[in-house]
Amino acid sequence: MRQWVLASRPDGLATIDNFRLEEAPVPEIGDRELLVRTLYLGVAPVMLRYMTNEASFERPLEIGDVMHGRGVAEVIASRHPDFRPGDRVQSKLGWREYAKIAPDDPYFLTYKMRNTDLPASYGIGSLAMSGFTALIGMREICQVVPGETVLVSGAAGGVGSQAGFVARALGAGNVVGIAGGPEKCSLLMTRLGYDAAIDYKSENVREKLEENFPDGIDVYFDNVFGEVLDEVLLLINRRARIALCGRISEYLKPVAEHHAFRNLGRLGLQDAKLEAFFVYDYTARFAEFEDILANWIRDGKLNPLEHVLEGLERMPEALIGLYEGRNAGVAMVRIG
Amino acid sequence: MRQWVLASRPDGLATIDNFRLEEAPVPEIGDRELLVRTLYLGVAPVMLRYMTNEASFERPLEIGDVMHGRGVAEVIASRHPDFRPGDRVQSKLGWREYAKIAPDDPYFLTYKMRNTDLPASYGIGSLAMSGFTALIGMREICQVVPGETVLVSGAAGGVGSQAGFVARALGAGNVVGIAGGPEKCSLLMTRLGYDAAIDYKSENVREKLEENFPDGIDVYFDNVFGEVLDEVLLLINRRARIALCGRISEYLKPVAEHHAFRNLGRLGLQDAKLEAFFVYDYTARFAEFEDILANWIRDGKLNPLEHVLEGLERMPEALIGLYEGRNAGVAMVRIG
Repeated sequence: MRQWVLASRPDGLATIDNFRLEEAPVPEIGDRELLVRTLYLGVAPVMLRYMTNEASFERPLEIGDVMHGRGVAEVIASRHPDFRPGDRVQSKLGWREYAKIAPDDPYFLTYKMRNTDLPASYGIGSLAMSGFTALIGMREICQVVPGETVLVSGAAGGVGSQAGFVARALGAGNVVGIAGGPEKCSLLMTRLGYDAAIDYKSENVREKLEENFPDGIDVYFDNVFGEVLDEVLLLINRRARIALCGRISEYLKPVAEHHAFRNLGRLGLQDAKLEAFFVYDYTARFAEFEDILANWIRDGKLNPLEHVLEGLERMPEALIGLYEGRNAGVAMVRIG
Repeated sequence: MRQWVLASRPDGLATIDNFRLEEAPVPEIGDRELLVRTLYLGVAPVMLRYMTNEASFERPLEIGDVMHGRGVAEVIASRHPDFRPGDRVQSKLGWREYAKIAPDDPYFLTYKMRNTDLPASYGIGSLAMSGFTALIGMREICQVVPGETVLVSGAAGGVGSQAGFVARALGAGNVVGIAGGPEKCSLLMTRLGYDAAIDYKSENVREKLEENFPDGIDVYFDNVFGEVLDEVLLLINRRARIALCGRISEYLKPVAEHHAFRNLGRLGLQDAKLEAFFVYDYTARFAEFEDILANWIRDGKLNPLEHVLEGLERMPEALIGLYEGRNAGVAMVRIG
């Protein structure tokens, strides 16, 4: 089988030279272990930080180690009483075609998928971390109430392409997305359930925000951070909630170039909240989240958009593409 | 009777010339109204914003109007079935010796005090807005858990002088206060239940924070905002909570001079929360809060510190003193 290992550490954005595609034997399994065949692997911006050991919640990665990553897989052989061949699982598979999994080890956060009537690829997106993240941000952190106004940045991305649907399912009124470029902005309105789109690359964001939110912003789901968040602060309503989900505008910038926020006092004036969160702090509720999202998909309230590359060999390209804003929807690579 | 009216609007910090002490007749009461005699009046930084009509939750104040303010009073005459002469009440009395109160008008937020075995002055502090604010910030917003590390700024002020006690009552471990000057810092440790004190006027705040929080900060109760908050962000732990209670460092500064926050990204890295709150959003729970705080006072867990000036004529001085950092403890004026 094939697997991707870390060849060297990136300086800023990764390049293809930081990865090496290797041959390796299909693993042998022991007691209470599974052999699984990878169906899809996801990519997430945080993976760049895995490569430099800057993500405290992930195990250190040495040169030559298989790249960390979650995916959805089919059980081929099981020596664990809770799993059988043919079961669909999510786990930290790593960037490889087959993986040995110890479901009892909490690090791998392995679980059997519940809603197997839906496509396996949803085990990367809507029924996995990006869907859970959209749900947690809108429902647990922002507690969207029917009729509220909602803004999402990075709205065409993996999480953002679901956040608008989630807001709407919770009863939000005006739901506006920010994305880069006319194609993505068009997708927001025609495919992703947004009422309006703002193109941060070609439009004046402040003016467009004022135009789209004449009565202010109740909820902001932020995937971007930086200047746009600072502008949004000027328009928040009393007791507004801002979910800080990602900071893609700053991941590649040195600390000295990080945005300095001038409008933070608006939080105080408006008795508002700015809260960051992490999907893995909610593992105890993943089964509940999977079922909620699966039901919304069946009811047509959530229509997952996927950006699928074909073949394990395209993993580095898929990750780098996130930073170049190439994907609309949940980025993934089909392996099996 | 005497009352203070707005004589002119302040430009920056108020001066004595912005107020005028007048004579007025004791009010006559109608059906479902009370005549009360003011015992104590409180002062709060926000009153400066009342004078310029910048506090959206308060009624506009015209030149010649009686200054807005809450106090504790004794009922002298009642034409309301729920109140009798001798009852102790809290209400928006205004800066006057006697007031007519309509308890049914929610604007005045009038309620009968429950714990009348305790001194009437506590109806300005620990059993009123400043005590409730300390409790809400620590318990509802920050949800202090036993053993957590807690920092409070403005720790010798009306709210801060109670926040340390509240944190300790909730089981906090290391509780550190920031205040200005050696006298206040000494009070924090000898009188106000803090484990350590940082003097922002004479000490290097960053170094002292690092020294006092070798394992990071779990909870920050912020009465000050600005540069100190930015420093604190560098030391917050995973899932830290910051309650934004006041911004006294900026109330008198033009927007252009407000602090620009460089370290806000730390919220994202640490999955932390920054939340502002307003005591009047919790009115439905004031009776519960009063009883909790009264019990802590009886148990010796909360030892209220009061800064009492004598006589209605000293109201302007009491308010201006808040901005000059003159008070330690809850600032109030004894009237009756």
